[in-house]
Amino acid sequence: MTSPSERHTSHFEVIPESRCKELLAVHTAGRIGWNAPDGPEILPVTYAYHNNEIVFRTSPHGVLSSLERRVRVAFEIDEIYEDVQTGWNVLVRGTARGVTNRYSLTTLWKNGPVPWASGVRNSFIAITPERISGRVVRAAFVD
Amino acid sequence: MTSPSERHTSHFEVIPESRCKELLAVHTAGRIGWNAPDGPEILPVTYAYHNNEIVFRTSPHGVLSSLERRVRVAFEIDEIYEDVQTGWNVLVRGTARGVTNRYSLTTLWKNGPVPWASGVRNSFIAITPERISGRVVRAAFVD
Repeated sequence: MTSPSERHTSHFEVIPESRCKELLAVHTAGRIGWNAPDGPEILPVTYAYHNNEIVFRTSPHGVLSSLERRVRVAFEIDEIYEDVQTGWNVLVRGTARGVTNRYSLTTLWKNGPVPWASGVRNSFIAITPERISGRVVRAAFVD
Repeated sequence: MTSPSERHTSHFEVIPESRCKELLAVHTAGRIGWNAPDGPEILPVTYAYHNNEIVFRTSPHGVLSSLERRVRVAFEIDEIYEDVQTGWNVLVRGTARGVTNRYSLTTLWKNGPVPWASGVRNSFIAITPERISGRVVRAAFVD
């Protein structure tokens, strides 16, 4: 992905936004972070990248349902290989909201994210990205 | 880990706190979440689990250095297998602070976390857990 000389001079490599979006499209599980009343929270979710938005399904009674009302969030996907000390991550920062538009809901029930866990999860939350960034990190001794 | 009947009635399995601590001890990379001035942030870090605290090294000029002054954070580790739709995560919620105690610093330089990325990363941040929780999730169709 980079020439050896690039690897010598930088320990992080920026992932271009277009590639970040590709990574968002091919993956299906990530982590959402927000500021809950009792402090920062991080929770894994399964998602779909649909019309440039991150969409996931949750229970209307679960902790994630608090994100229905326009809440600022961070959404992260990554692959970290501890054994070879290398990894990448993509971070989306934006605003979450409940999906209420009937047309969107019909589409999402057909093509949207399917939670792994069972139970009533008929609330769709969408995150509109305001900023997408990504980077690759490798152990310093790779150089 | 559970009997088939348990799997039929619950889609999440709680990981006991003692096992969460074992998982924190054997892993070396996780994600820290906090409420930055411009909204929630999630960043991967390499860490060590040392004296019941999460410790990581960072640059005194980097974004994580803002956590030196007693900031509430979430710290998460997980393994998610998208192909077989199963995974687990451990979430630590607590307060981060800069490590300034000379004895602690000496120990941490010897046995503490080693960042993968190069550069001057001589600031140690420690998170004192206030709550540790973990769970396993499997796809509903496993049942």
